[in-house]
Parts: sequence; C-alpha cells; structure tokens
Amino acid sequence: MDGLTRIQCRSLMKLSTHVPRAAAHAISRRHASTLATTNAPSTKERVVILGSGWAGYAAARTLSPSKTTRILISPRSHFAFTPLLASTSVGTLEFRAAIEPVRRLGLDEFHQAWASSIDFKNKTIRVEANLRGDVSAATNRPEIKGEEFDVKYDKLVIAVGCYSQTFGIEGVKEHANFLRDVGDARAIRLQVLQAFETADLPTTSDEERKKLLHFAVVGGGPTGIEFAAELHDLIKDDLSRMYPKLQKHCAITVYDIAPKVLPMFDSKLAAYATETFKRQGIRVKTEHHLTRIRRQGHVLMLQIKEEPEEVGAGIVVWSTGLMQNPLVKTLVESDIEGVGKIAKDPRTGGIVTNPNLQVQLQGAGDGSETTTLKDVYAVGDCTSVQGASYPATAQVAAQQAVYLAKQLNRGDKEASKPFKFKNWGVMTYLGSWRAIHQSEADNLRGWAAWVLWRTAYLTRSMSVRNKIMIPVYWVITWIFGRDISRF
Amino acid sequence: MDGLTRIQCRSLMKLSTHVPRAAAHAISRRHASTLATTNAPSTKERVVILGSGWAGYAAARTLSPSKTTRILISPRSHFAFTPLLASTSVGTLEFRAAIEPVRRLGLDEFHQAWASSIDFKNKTIRVEANLRGDVSAATNRPEIKGEEFDVKYDKLVIAVGCYSQTFGIEGVKEHANFLRDVGDARAIRLQVLQAFETADLPTTSDEERKKLLHFAVVGGGPTGIEFAAELHDLIKDDLSRMYPKLQKHCAITVYDIAPKVLPMFDSKLAAYATETFKRQGIRVKTEHHLTRIRRQGHVLMLQIKEEPEEVGAGIVVWSTGLMQNPLVKTLVESDIEGVGKIAKDPRTGGIVTNPNLQVQLQGAGDGSETTTLKDVYAVGDCTSVQGASYPATAQVAAQQAVYLAKQLNRGDKEASKPFKFKNWGVMTYLGSWRAIHQSEADNLRGWAAWVLWRTAYLTRSMSVRNKIMIPVYWVITWIFGRDISRF
Repeated sequence: MDGLTRIQCRSLMKLSTHVPRAAAHAISRRHASTLATTNAPSTKERVVILGSGWAGYAAARTLSPSKTTRILISPRSHFAFTPLLASTSVGTLEFRAAIEPVRRLGLDEFHQAWASSIDFKNKTIRVEANLRGDVSAATNRPEIKGEEFDVKYDKLVIAVGCYSQTFGIEGVKEHANFLRDVGDARAIRLQVLQAFETADLPTTSDEERKKLLHFAVVGGGPTGIEFAAELHDLIKDDLSRMYPKLQKHCAITVYDIAPKVLPMFDSKLAAYATETFKRQGIRVKTEHHLTRIRRQGHVLMLQIKEEPEEVGAGIVVWSTGLMQNPLVKTLVESDIEGVGKIAKDPRTGGIVTNPNLQVQLQGAGDGSETTTLKDVYAVGDCTSVQGASYPATAQVAAQQAVYLAKQLNRGDKEASKPFKFKNWGVMTYLGSWRAIHQSEADNLRGWAAWVLWRTAYLTRSMSVRNKIMIPVYWVITWIFGRDISRF
Repeated sequence: MDGLTRIQCRSLMKLSTHVPRAAAHAISRRHASTLATTNAPSTKERVVILGSGWAGYAAARTLSPSKTTRILISPRSHFAFTPLLASTSVGTLEFRAAIEPVRRLGLDEFHQAWASSIDFKNKTIRVEANLRGDVSAATNRPEIKGEEFDVKYDKLVIAVGCYSQTFGIEGVKEHANFLRDVGDARAIRLQVLQAFETADLPTTSDEERKKLLHFAVVGGGPTGIEFAAELHDLIKDDLSRMYPKLQKHCAITVYDIAPKVLPMFDSKLAAYATETFKRQGIRVKTEHHLTRIRRQGHVLMLQIKEEPEEVGAGIVVWSTGLMQNPLVKTLVESDIEGVGKIAKDPRTGGIVTNPNLQVQLQGAGDGSETTTLKDVYAVGDCTSVQGASYPATAQVAAQQAVYLAKQLNRGDKEASKPFKFKNWGVMTYLGSWRAIHQSEADNLRGWAAWVLWRTAYLTRSMSVRNKIMIPVYWVITWIFGRDISRF
C-alpha cells in the first residue's frame, strides 16, 4: 500500500482532458431515443484488460474505441481513487466521490468476474463471475462459486494488482481493517462511529472507554499516516463536540517496524511529519512489531513485541505489505505448452516484463536466453520491468497503462520506445491543514503543501462529475463539519 | 407505510426556522477551544423521548434546552427523511441527504438503545444498548443482547412508531426488501445494480434475464408508487445506456390487494397516476394477492393467487402494512401497579391517548371511566387519539410531536388546547417529471405538481446542510445521470 498516494500528476492531467468530451457526449445521449450498440465490428482487435485498479482503469480509458474492441474483466465494477479513501472513511468526502463506475466508460464488454486461468495457446481466459452485491473486502474471493465462462482475446493486458500481505500474523485477517477499496472505508467509518456510541453508554467503564477509543494504525506509509491524520481531524473538529466527555479517552497510535515512518520522504520532511503528529497527540511508535490481534468483548487486544502488556484498541487499520494475488501465483508457476514458463521476479514473486511491458519468458535451456509471450502484456503492482526497479505505486501503474494503451492504439506495428517512469513527486496529508510534498523540483511543508495537496487531488479526480462534487463536499464539510451519519 | 409521504408543510417550515440559528452556532463553535458541557442543572425536568422517527425527532428538536433536560433513546442514531428514501435507493440522491444524525441536535443525553420495559411507578425505563455498527433493517432487533441499564424520567414521550407488517406471508420477512430506513435503501440499490450485472453475464439465459430484471413492488401506497416511479427513471435514463441489450427484459409491476392504488387521492388523480404508469410501461395489478416468496438461484419466485404460474423477480419491495412494535404490545397488556392497564385501540393495537396526547388508562371497574397515566405521553403511529381517527402518516406524527413539545416547554401548567390535526395535502411522484398533489385548496397533476413536489421536499428538508446539498445533487444528477456506483 505504501506509496499509493504517489501519482503522476501530469499524465493524469492529460488523461482528464478526455473527460469533458465524453461527458458532453453522455449528456447529449441522455434523452436520445436511439441507443448505441456495443457490438464492435470484428475487424478490430479484442484487447482484454484484467483488473480495474490504477493500471487497468487507466488502460481502459486510454484505449481508442475506434481502433480496438475494449474488454474489461474485474471482480469489482468500479475504479477506486485510493488517495481519497482515507477522507471518505472519516466523512470528509462522500464515498461516490472516490470511485468511478467502469460501466460509464462505455466499453464494448465488461465482465464482473475473476480470471481463474489463461489458455495462452488458444488465447482464451477462463473467468468466474462475481455475483456479490456488496463491495466490502473486494480483494478476498467469496466462498460461493460463481458461474464460469470463457473470454477470447487478441491482446491481453494483465493488471490485476496485489492483495494485502498480513505476514501470517495471528488475527490480522480476521480483525484488522484494510483501506484499499470503498467498502473498506465504509467498514472503518461504521466501526469508528460505533466505538464512540459504545463508549458513551453509561454501562461502559472508563478503562473500557480508553481501549475502545484507541485507534491503532499498523504501517507508517502514506496511507497509514493520512488515515491517522484524517481521523485526528474528525475527532478534534467534529466528534469532540458530539461526545465532549469522551475526548480525554481518545488516542491514535501509528505502529511501524521500520526505524522511521514515510521512508520515501527525505529525513527533514519525515521529521516534520513526526513533529506535527506529536503536537497533535498522535503517537508514532517505530520499531514496534505487532505479533497478534484477538477480540475481547467490544475491543481488540494487540500483542506487541516491544510492549510488556497487551494494548486494547477499538479498531486496527492495516496498511502495510503487498502479496501477489492467486492468478499471478498460478501464472508464474505453470508450464505453457511449447513456450515454457513466465519469468518470475525472485523478490516480489511478480511477473517480469521487458521494457515494452511484454511478458517475459524464462529461457528454455540455460536460463539466460529469454523471449516474450506473444500478445501478452502486464502492468502495475503485479509486475517488475526488467532492468528497472519501480516502486509499487499508483503513479507507476497509471503511467505504464497509458504507455501500453497508446502502443496498442497504434497497432503495435512500429517498434515503440521503451517505457520510462517519470517521478512526479510524493505528498502526504498530516492533519490540521498541513501536508508535505517532495519532488525533484521542490520540497514543501505546512499550509502551502496542503493547498497543493488539495489542488492536485482535485486535478487528478477522474470524472467531471467528481471534479465538481469534490470541492462542493470540501466546502460543505468546512462549513458544517464532517458527515457523522452511518449508512 | 402508506402515507409516509404526506407531511404537514407549514408546521415543518416553521420547524426549519430553528435550523439556521443552530447551524450558525455550530459553525462558531467549530474552532472554539471551550466545549459546552452536556450536564444540565437538576432543576430542569428530564423529558425522555423514545424513538427518533418523525414524532421523536420533531419532539427532540422542539423541546427547549433552557426549559427541559432533553433525553432521546432510540436504536438508531439518526432520523430518516422517509419521503426521499426512494430517491436514495436509485442514486438520484445521496444517502446522507435523507438522514439527520441525532447527535447534531446537541441533546443532553442520547442512548443508542431499545426501551425494553417501563416502570411507571418509579419513573424508570429499562433499556438495552444497540451495539451494531450497521443500520440495515434497523426495525428488527438483533440476536445478540446488548448491555442493559436504567434511565430516569420526569416526563415520558412514547414515539416508537410501528414495524412493517408481513401478514405472516411465507418468505416475505426472509426475501423481500423494506424501504423504511437508509439501510434498506442501500440494500435495494445494491441488489438492483447486481441484478443488472448478473443478467449481463454471458452465462445467463434470456429466460433468467426476464426474471432477474422484473422488479416487483407490493403495496400501491405513495411509498410503493414513488419507488416504482424512481426505479423506472433510473432504468430509462441511466441503466439503459449502460446495459442497452438488457433493456427489453426490464419490467416493473406494482401489486395491491385493493381495487385501486393511492386510495388517499381522489379517483381522478388516481386514474391519472395509473394512466401515467401505463404509458411508462409500469404494470399495476390491483386485486392481486401475494401468497408466497421463495428463492430459486439468483431470483425470487412469487406465488400470486390470481396468476396461474409463479412469477420470477430480481427484487421484491414490500411497502404495505404496519404492526405495533414489541414495546407497545407489552405496554398495552401489562398491569401497572395501583393504576390498572393502558387503554388499547381495538383496531390497531396501539396506545390510546386523550386529545392532549396523554396516555389513557382503562377504567378500573365498569370499563367506561378512564383517567390518564401521569406524566406519560404518546405520539405518532403507535397511538390513537380518543375521538379522532388520524391516518398513520408522517404529518400527523410530526404535528403531534410539535404540539406536545411546546406544551412541555410551557411547563404543562396551563390547561392547553387539545391537539388538532391540520391536513396539508398529499403528493406523490409518478416518474418522468410528473407528480400529483391534492389538498383542500387545489388538485394538481403533471409537471406543475412535480415542481411543487421538489420545492416542498426541499423546504421540508431538515438541516441547512441538506437544504444546500439536495439541490446540488439534483443538478448533478440532471447533468450527469444518477449515481450507479455501489458502496
């Protein structure tokens, strides 16, 4: 999850210039009686994208409808704008402001399904339908099996991303909250508000209140830090007025195993972040190792290696670690008839691509000689580009997807220039109208960085609808406070 | 549920004049460092309100904080603006626009709990905490028992409302959706959108699609009719563009056992409604009796007495019938030491009050002589006023609550005039920018009634925040279409 907030500004700004035209088109169609058919002439190539995250969604938006038949397969029917999830979890923003339904892209086909396996020889994907109405914990596959069917491709783009890594720590999967999708944000929001209601009951003891209103964040990357900051603002600005007697029991702690949080920032900015948190009363405990979470009545009990006693908490937000998802694990292990095995990154377990983002094969004989898997590409967190070491961030994923989609729009005939990542800087919100921003050009902190942070998020927001709604929500929140209703 | 959309315009407009002051106060407090304490001096009387529906919320808002200690007990922490629930279930409006968190009222005490029993002699209420974080199906009590504690009162206002009546029809409780709270609206929304995703799968047969995309509404009162109308608009304006091939399988049917729908409207307006529905392709089947619902794979199978074969449906929305909730059932049956029994309405099973809304007692001896239960009042759907026959509607509940709260603000010393209901008319949305409105002054239909319908809902909207947000949502929806994201 670390670094999901680091996005390539400029390329997304370019992306967003597509939107007004599309939206205007949508408006003009609203009251028209004839409806466009989704059947594409068979002369166009079928480009199938697996996944609707940063990589998959950017690829789907960039593919030209006149040059390709665009097919998207993903278990969730929307793209989640991850940097705003922390805001939605505390009611600063509405859930819908952080997501874009893929159906609005007007693709030729969308299947709400998981890819189970791929037959590269016959260019066929076996998929399993996801029939759950809900979106919580969308990264976990449900027990009930959905219908299976096959989807053909001419070109395949693997952009399935990663799952959260829990390192086998007892109780994390069962009791911790993740913050990777809007369903996760909703679950956190309900639990935080419920913790206050439970703490407010006359039957709750002060000792119990202290545990219930202790909010633990595991992982000191941008996601964890921003969630802690947003939660602090919610408690200070809003909940303190509604539960004045509970204020003294509230506490937020960020745990990390590393010696410092926000490792992607230079030490001066990271120190500023730690100092800001200290002034706000948010505890940052570095070099602390969570070893177990168990439930005890209404609270969770955390065992931490460096603490003598278990620590109680009302909620634990887990924002550290990535692992490959089951499809990628299967793909890198299986023998493809006549061509061999897909090259696997020994460190991450992900798919290795060449600099043109084509999937690499392991050498058949001596291990050094490699070729690519014809018509199969991979982008985003589930990949490693040969000879480069890009971080698993949103901006890398989105840039790769745009590069690849443009290449596919050109018909892939001319030899294209290899993919090159442009780092457009990192930024993180710290609470109380302060942020930090670091790029090759400048380092900013405090209020100026906060203004940049808001502006950048607004510019990056994907649809015109959300570009209009997000500032409206911000103004409403600024005047009336955050939304504390539960739904 | 019938008639929940009928609200007393003028009294709510008066109510809403309280809001700007309160909001301004809230704004000024936002960045103040001192926090108001909720401890009230003991000289003020403790007025305890049970319930946060139309009656309970209106009473809580109207009680004067300087003259009473205001205590609210309700299993849900918000008031739901029921006439807008249908709009939120189809994405025309955001969920938060239809609810008002009770914590924002700044009451002296709020307990998220059910009242289990009342000791009238010692003026004590035994309550059970509701510790669920979620709000779906808030009218049903969960299996897990919450902590119990006692709350003292000087004056008690019973405003607990009614539960949905399912008439013991097999499968209704398990498979039908209600539309009484925002959690219900959310459940409907997810199921409708999921029905389209399931129908769109290549593995789904056309026969199955026809069943999945048949949306059944049981109950032809304003709630059922408005939901059918809003759903029709969603399908016609938005989903038809996203699922063009599925359009031909969509159908909406409203079932009612009565010979005509919308019985509260005169026959000319009701005929206009039926005619409008017919043109929109919404089927209205009056004098039809649902006898069973069972699940079959992804669809529900409805057995209807008047139809030869079972009818398939993707969703069944149940919007008919009220029954007393368990507390009221217990209260009207139990003997109160030294005073006898509470008078019970033989038709509805509700609590009988005198015209001052004080709870009536049954005569101790010959059955004709009655007195009132000291310091106990009851308002809204769970009551009947002696000598009057008010419908179980939002406008009756809200008017009664305001009347009673003002009486309590005056200290109840002077003999107050009896409660008198003022009927401010009924209105219902019919889809495609048309509505009907009927009052003592005029009957309106079509576009003019639609304008009145929108304006009235806006005026009635409870908080300044929602007064601003609702028109913003309407404009956004009008430009970009309804929200089809799932969360």
